[in-house]
Parts: sequence; structure tokens; C-alpha cells
Amino acid sequence: MKLRFTKMQGAGNDFVVLDATRKSLALSPEQYRALADRRFGVGADQILIVGPAPAPGVDFSYRIVNADGGEVEQCGNGARCFAKFVRDHGLSDKDAIRVQTLSGVIEPRLQPDGRVTVDMGEPVFEPARIPFDPHGLQARPAGGHEQWPLELGGTTTVMVAVASMGNPHAVQRVDNVDTAPVAEQGPLIEAHPRFPRRVNAGFMQVLSRDHIRLRVYERGAGETLACGTGACAAVVIGIRQGWLDARVDVDTRGGRLSIEWNGAGTPVLMTGPAVSVFEGEIEV
Amino acid sequence: MKLRFTKMQGAGNDFVVLDATRKSLALSPEQYRALADRRFGVGADQILIVGPAPAPGVDFSYRIVNADGGEVEQCGNGARCFAKFVRDHGLSDKDAIRVQTLSGVIEPRLQPDGRVTVDMGEPVFEPARIPFDPHGLQARPAGGHEQWPLELGGTTTVMVAVASMGNPHAVQRVDNVDTAPVAEQGPLIEAHPRFPRRVNAGFMQVLSRDHIRLRVYERGAGETLACGTGACAAVVIGIRQGWLDARVDVDTRGGRLSIEWNGAGTPVLMTGPAVSVFEGEIEV
Repeated sequence: MKLRFTKMQGAGNDFVVLDATRKSLALSPEQYRALADRRFGVGADQILIVGPAPAPGVDFSYRIVNADGGEVEQCGNGARCFAKFVRDHGLSDKDAIRVQTLSGVIEPRLQPDGRVTVDMGEPVFEPARIPFDPHGLQARPAGGHEQWPLELGGTTTVMVAVASMGNPHAVQRVDNVDTAPVAEQGPLIEAHPRFPRRVNAGFMQVLSRDHIRLRVYERGAGETLACGTGACAAVVIGIRQGWLDARVDVDTRGGRLSIEWNGAGTPVLMTGPAVSVFEGEIEV
Repeated sequence: MKLRFTKMQGAGNDFVVLDATRKSLALSPEQYRALADRRFGVGADQILIVGPAPAPGVDFSYRIVNADGGEVEQCGNGARCFAKFVRDHGLSDKDAIRVQTLSGVIEPRLQPDGRVTVDMGEPVFEPARIPFDPHGLQARPAGGHEQWPLELGGTTTVMVAVASMGNPHAVQRVDNVDTAPVAEQGPLIEAHPRFPRRVNAGFMQVLSRDHIRLRVYERGAGETLACGTGACAAVVIGIRQGWLDARVDVDTRGGRLSIEWNGAGTPVLMTGPAVSVFEGEIEV
């Protein structure tokens, strides 16, 4: 079967996007894996399958399949690429597009500059819900958001603040992300026994009250070009520490993400790029 | 500018192939790098540009540009993909296609089974031409091809045989390539002071007189899926040791290559796969 696809990326997180709005598409896990393979297939972090509206009041549905063939719940970078895809392909002329995902209905919004804004939900700070075990640790209170000492390998202790954006994050402030020990500390923080479901390790450099640089060692993936939830967690933590204002540009290795958060009880909004890289056709 | 391309692979070595036979194509090194990028471009080890015949008696020319933007001299996997490309796209109906490359005219030959045979040239064994410095070492003669003791890190000594296929190779025989210490020994062999221009480190498991398994730690690249010249060097060395017959199947992690060598004064013939993965169009 010939399959038309669009290769897209958002801040370096890349997708093979398939249009199943007019004709259903049922590929096997092996076929998804083959599509995602960077040498024997198209190559991507994930496959994004755009489907028709499942109910009134919703414009589309989509599913995201990982390179390993398993389905994933949500992905800010994928939501942005989805919105750009349906507009570019004339499937919708709306700016705010309601779409059913595995984790509920979301509404990515196209900006006049071509970027896309996605509601990333509310951050969670209670240790048990992250989950993080602070038992017996001495927090350093700082502007309303605790920092915790984390022992790494017996000789080094780093101060991290923790938050969940649906997945757990431990963020530390560093003087310079270029020289931050991401490769050395990342695996130790990720697997630290204080995080029973492991954790994403963020390294944040504050340039000004509305501009940071960020590197993230992702749980199960190592350092990545851009981690959307990691950018949200870093900014929310920086705001609670009193370091940052409500709107912050985050420079990652894959590009710039803009994060907005107006405090407790409000969701985090992430705005970022969504780019069509090329169109293609493959036999599957 | 919209650019049509074909993504191809030969034993896991992948190419973006561009047709410049009817219209010349002059991309900048930055544009080649962008095409080769696996997230922000199409993604490939190399870009292969097929051009028209530069002189009578030759059917085509081609150039190969590395992912870093620099031009490379030759590549057995690229030659196979070239031949498949011009046949698939109706640019030639010949089985043996003469093509001018940066390192001379070659004539890849399409086989009835869809694989392609390439003349890889004659192997070189003189130490100075590899280059390899055997000064003061005690060779172990074995079936006419010396094996040399190579000290690795002061504690381990491995026996290697050396050959050049235009690039230097040090090959050792192992009981099982799956458990061979490729990641540990590869970098030590590659940078061993006995090889003034460094060396590709091969690990060969002999299954029978016409079938081996091979892993190669490539100079400057680390372990790769398949190394064409490494397969040639391993088979030639195995034949000279008396372990192998003149035609040998070589199983690499990227697929099977078949090598034929009929002894001193004859070239090594390599037959292997060349696969069109997908067709696409990209804005450059």
C-alpha cells in the first residue's frame, strides 16, 4: 500500500504525520516501527495519525504512536504539528482547533506568526503526586517553592525543585547550561531513589526575568533537543522561586518555546514552532 | 526551490539521491547539511547527486557529499544505490552502468535478484601502504597472511591481520560477534599508534567456509550497521588465512553483503542490496 505522509518537527521533536480523516488507517505496530526507523523508514520520534471528529463539538481526533510501536497519551510538540498540518492541508480554516486525544480534548491555537499555542494543563507540586519522596530531607524554602538537596553518588549534592506536568521533573538552576554536567548528573537524578517513577532532570540558566536557557535529560531517552513539559516545569518553578515573570522565552537546543503561567489554578500555555519539513510517499 | 528526492539505503547505509541529469544542481554545503539532518531535513549518512555523462563511453557521473557537507571519494553502498536509482527512474536500461566518480570510472552491475555488484578494487597488504608499522613486532604466520599482536591498554593483546581496501582495516577473528568487545576494543584499535592514519577495527566470526558474521568499528564513526570495505577486508584476510573460500556471505547488522575474491591481482567484487525507501519533495 502506498502511503502519503508529511514529515514535521516542532523544536526538534519530529513526526511522521498521516491523514486518516477521509479513509481509516490501521497499521500494525511493526509498520509504525518501520515508518519511524531513521534508516529503513522515514524516521521520526513518533507517528501522528489525524482522524475525523469522533463526536459533535470536536473537529478532529488524533493518536500518537511511539517509535517503539506503543501509543502515547499526550505531547505538546505533537499537538502543535497536528494544528499546523490540518491548516496546511486545508482540512480546517479555524485558528483554534478542538481535537480528541487519548488524554482528553485539547484546543491548540494557531498564532499569526505561524507558531501554535497549546494548553499544557495545571502544574502539580504535591510531592506524593509527582511522585517524590522528601522524607527526612531538609528543604530550603526559597520564594514559596522548596528546593531539596539531592545526593548524587555520595560525593555531590544538588538542589532541585520538583513539579509534575503530567510527568515528573526535577529542575536545578545552573550558571551556564553549556557547561552544566547534564550527561554526568542526568542519569543519577533520573534514577534517584527519591523518585519512585524516575524523573526528568532539568538544567535551567536564567538570562533575565523573561528569558531562560534549558537542557533536559529525559526519563528513558537521555538528553533531547527540546522537552515541552520540561520547559513548562522549569518556568513554573522559576516563577514560584521569584526568578521569572509570567511569560518566559525558553531556548532549548531544538529551538525556542514560549511559556506563560498566571499562577495557581491556571493552566500553563506553551507556544512554539511547528514546521513541515517535507512531503513524501512510501510503500508500507 | 522545491527539490524532488529519493531516500535509499544499502545495508543500512542511507542516502538522499538527487537527479541532476537533466538540470544541474548546485546546493551549498549548508543545504547539503540541512538535507542530511535527521530531524530538520530528510536525514541520511550521505547525499548522492546523479549527473549526466561527462564524456563518451560513460553513462553518468555522480558525487557523494557527507552529512558534514564535505565531498567523499567512493562508497560501495552509494554505488549500488546509484545503479538502482537510474534503473528505477528509467534513466538507463543497462545492467552494467559506467559512471564517473571522484575516484575514477566504476561499473556497478545490476543482478537478476535486484542486488548490485560493485568492483571494490584490489586489496593491499604491504604494511607501509596500509599504513601499519610492524617494527619490532613478532608476526604469527598463519596460512600466508601474518597476524600481529596488538597491545591494548597494557593488559590485553589481540591478534589482528591488516589490509587496505583504499582505507586501512585491522581484523580479528572472534568466537561470537554478539559478545565481541567492539565498544571497548574498537576505540583502542582505531587509535593504536601502530596505525599512523588510524584504522577500522573488524571483528569476524567464521560460521563456515562461505559464511561469516562481521561487526566493524569505523574510523571516526564508531560502530556502523555495515561497512562495505570492512566486509571486503575481512573476507580477503579470511581467504588468505585459509579459513574461507572465494565467495563468502557476510552478515552485518544492516544486512547481507556477498564478497568474491579470486586471489592476488584480481579485484574484490561486492554484491549487496540497494533499496528505495521513499520518494519525497522538500523546499530547500
